[in-house]
Amino acid sequence: MSISNGKSISLKELAALCGGRVVGDENVVVSSIASLDVAKAGELTFLTGTKNFSDISESLKTNKIAAVITSENIPDLPVPSIRLKNPHLGLIAALNFFRKEVKISYKIHPTAYVSESATVASDAIVGPNAVVEDGAIIGAGSHIEGTAYIGRFAKIGSNTHIHPGVKILDDCVVGSNCIIHSNTVIGSDGYGFAQEQGQHIKVPQLGNVIIEDNVEIGACVTVDRATMESTVIGEGTKTDNHIHIAHNVKIGKKCLIVAQVGIAGGATIGDYVVIAGKAGIIGHVHIGTGSTILSCGIVTNNVPEKSYISGFPAKPHQEELRIKGALRKLPDLIKRVKNLENKIDEEK
Amino acid sequence: MSISNGKSISLKELAALCGGRVVGDENVVVSSIASLDVAKAGELTFLTGTKNFSDISESLKTNKIAAVITSENIPDLPVPSIRLKNPHLGLIAALNFFRKEVKISYKIHPTAYVSESATVASDAIVGPNAVVEDGAIIGAGSHIEGTAYIGRFAKIGSNTHIHPGVKILDDCVVGSNCIIHSNTVIGSDGYGFAQEQGQHIKVPQLGNVIIEDNVEIGACVTVDRATMESTVIGEGTKTDNHIHIAHNVKIGKKCLIVAQVGIAGGATIGDYVVIAGKAGIIGHVHIGTGSTILSCGIVTNNVPEKSYISGFPAKPHQEELRIKGALRKLPDLIKRVKNLENKIDEEK
Amino acid sequence: MSISNGKSISLKELAALCGGRVVGDENVVVSSIASLDVAKAGELTFLTGTKNFSDISESLKTNKIAAVITSENIPDLPVPSIRLKNPHLGLIAALNFFRKEVKISYKIHPTAYVSESATVASDAIVGPNAVVEDGAIIGAGSHIEGTAYIGRFAKIGSNTHIHPGVKILDDCVVGSNCIIHSNTVIGSDGYGFAQEQGQHIKVPQLGNVIIEDNVEIGACVTVDRATMESTVIGEGTKTDNHIHIAHNVKIGKKCLIVAQVGIAGGATIGDYVVIAGKAGIIGHVHIGTGSTILSCGIVTNNVPEKSYISGFPAKPHQEELRIKGALRKLPDLIKRVKNLENKIDEEK
Repeated sequence: MSISNGKSISLKELAALCGGRVVGDENVVVSSIASLDVAKAGELTFLTGTKNFSDISESLKTNKIAAVITSENIPDLPVPSIRLKNPHLGLIAALNFFRKEVKISYKIHPTAYVSESATVASDAIVGPNAVVEDGAIIGAGSHIEGTAYIGRFAKIGSNTHIHPGVKILDDCVVGSNCIIHSNTVIGSDGYGFAQEQGQHIKVPQLGNVIIEDNVEIGACVTVDRATMESTVIGEGTKTDNHIHIAHNVKIGKKCLIVAQVGIAGGATIGDYVVIAGKAGIIGHVHIGTGSTILSCGIVTNNVPEKSYISGFPAKPHQEELRIKGALRKLPDLIKRVKNLENKIDEEK
Repeated sequence: MSISNGKSISLKELAALCGGRVVGDENVVVSSIASLDVAKAGELTFLTGTKNFSDISESLKTNKIAAVITSENIPDLPVPSIRLKNPHLGLIAALNFFRKEVKISYKIHPTAYVSESATVASDAIVGPNAVVEDGAIIGAGSHIEGTAYIGRFAKIGSNTHIHPGVKILDDCVVGSNCIIHSNTVIGSDGYGFAQEQGQHIKVPQLGNVIIEDNVEIGACVTVDRATMESTVIGEGTKTDNHIHIAHNVKIGKKCLIVAQVGIAGGATIGDYVVIAGKAGIIGHVHIGTGSTILSCGIVTNNVPEKSYISGFPAKPHQEELRIKGALRKLPDLIKRVKNLENKIDEEK
Repeated sequence: MSISNGKSISLKELAALCGGRVVGDENVVVSSIASLDVAKAGELTFLTGTKNFSDISESLKTNKIAAVITSENIPDLPVPSIRLKNPHLGLIAALNFFRKEVKISYKIHPTAYVSESATVASDAIVGPNAVVEDGAIIGAGSHIEGTAYIGRFAKIGSNTHIHPGVKILDDCVVGSNCIIHSNTVIGSDGYGFAQEQGQHIKVPQLGNVIIEDNVEIGACVTVDRATMESTVIGEGTKTDNHIHIAHNVKIGKKCLIVAQVGIAGGATIGDYVVIAGKAGIIGHVHIGTGSTILSCGIVTNNVPEKSYISGFPAKPHQEELRIKGALRKLPDLIKRVKNLENKIDEEK
């Protein structure tokens, strides 16, 4: 599958869009981009990383690829290229240039329900069978897709894209330039119960969720509302799918949270924290700014700034690696100890 | 964010509501509650746990906090307090008193679809773009929120709250006083296939799910229907988000199941079992009443009553702790054994 | 709960349906099936596995069970039986015979929204408050249940069942004879960002998802669209619930993927691969055809065909078992080494 929309662009123009430098004929014109494995004659492609460049050069020639977006430090190629220090910026520019425009023929679709007490900006879109409840506010240029639900007194900023099936529940706030992917739930009740005489008595969850600007949240994510106050996801943070963010969690700015992570109640997370897939953070701990938690790491204590941790309990990754390496030697170690015991016994 | 609704209450009245005891001026009147970190002058707050009480006392005075709900064994405070053995009961009473009333202007919303063969109690609410299919029954006082779906011949008891996007599928039964959070699925097919000549042939999943009274289920949870018979969630059990409960599982009464737990097919779980986050239970095992499975524990065998287990495979927590402690010494242990081997070799 | 629909069948006829062999009176007629624990007088039941057959024989007689579907190698039973090499084929035939027919009185429900530019086969069904967007195609005999969403230019093959709340997003393709369970999302954006000057800049995700024929996908699953090209789920693959399949993943034919598995971006998976619950696969690795990844295994490297692996990092299961066995001896091993050290010290 190539990405194209009928438009063409010269390498010179595309390089200008992304701040790149053309090596080779800058007048070459391309009208589609495809990934390296499947690009066809005349197409633009993207090359990064540590690959076998002699094979790739051969295949670029054989397949008559028109041009390549790549990084400054990739060796010479037999076709024209746009070079950037960060080649992904070139890829992004090309994808944005070649993306198909989605034409939407409605503003508020007739099958949508928008409460009379809700406020929807005149250029916002509310899709088929979506719901915007009492007192909700939808900002300029935002798009509430079909079957999405915006609860009572929820606020959506401007130019935010709420995908099908998303639930933004009562009183929650989503900033501007956010993207929330399908079937994610913002503002479900926190998990809080008092134990009394063998009963679990619900602690009312009356706070909300605040999602700051430029946040992207994956599909099937849940962010629980705070008991009082707000669960917060900071500016520019991006999450993958199937993440659980419990009540009263505060996540800082520009964090990256990968799929199937769980963050328990009251945890606080600094800025620029990276949490890899399937990791977990127990309740009420603090993760310092700039830290990285590797895949499956379970954090059970406060973590200082710029920590690089893994394992359960999470510890400095070098220590975890030493333990994992040692573990593979353990069955043999048991034999060696038995052997030593025998030798010592014999000596007596 | 303070929790308030325009109503005021004296400490004397609030103490009566929750069975607490006022220390200090019982005529102090409060009209909002906020958490300790953000409470402002004149507000009620909540204090629990093992904190630095001299700092807190100072801040309560400085911030002119009106009163504190706290436990009997917290030291003297410089402002009036309501004391309870279980202070969360006081918090619950205050939150319930100060919660905003949600006013809903419709019974069956005009954009909802309710089948002619469905039965909806006269005081039940069915929200915008919700669906109640053929033969479904919705009990008195229940609230089916917008975009929720109640399948064919499903039964919802009384005073149950089905949040937006929940799917209660065909033939499933939800009791009274239940809460099911957004985008949860009750009654998806169990995962069952017969292998024959390289094909996976679907075993029809024709049973249902029965959720007993007073159950609360988090967001994005799935509970699969039984092959035959019923998958059961017992009275008073409360689950967090992103939990997978497979077909033919039977969960007892008043269990607590935390986020991202997975319970495989046919497992049976006693009463008052606690399963912490990310834990897993393999198929067809039994967890005895009163057991606790700690975070990330993977249970691979039957577990007697009142077990307290962790690890993979799950084992008594003390044993798991010993192993985890020993693991940190393992890299060093390998060196020590090498050292011993060298010494023994030298001796010869 | 027994499975019945008012129809009756003789053992002779049922055996003919499933290729079984009747032992005992083939004229016995049954009109319901129930599982062994709860079957009542006159009912058909199903017996498999390694159970206590003398107790079961006794209970079959006592409970006056009419007949049993079982395997060829089960001992003689005191009631008639249908014997098969693969008894699940008999169970499947009986369940299909006794399943209740769901009668649906509409084709395109009046509350559904179907775009004028969409194409819905004349015998396809689109349920209440479902959405079929511009340019989408729904094949013959397919059923889009209430509140489901089919995006712009998405294609659904024939005889495919899309359950309530499922989102098939723009440009995605679902084959024929597929089942997609509730609240699953097909085609959410892949998780891709370029880092530049402390910003996370979104890489547009412009590819799609292709789900081949005969695929079944569980509830609350997410399958992300490819950046360019397609994320692919191969013919006959069956997944359980809460699975994350990232962008550009290619899954082969007839795989089985159990609940809460995560598969990171660009991973490729051969045919007939089994991935057990909570396992994970990191990005860009290849899993060879016929491999099995056991529960909670985390695959961090390419895996050859027919591997049987577990642990983190995943390794041959026998090796993982040896390590797990050795681990339980580790606390004791530390004592033994201390003991040896003392002995050696003493000797000096």
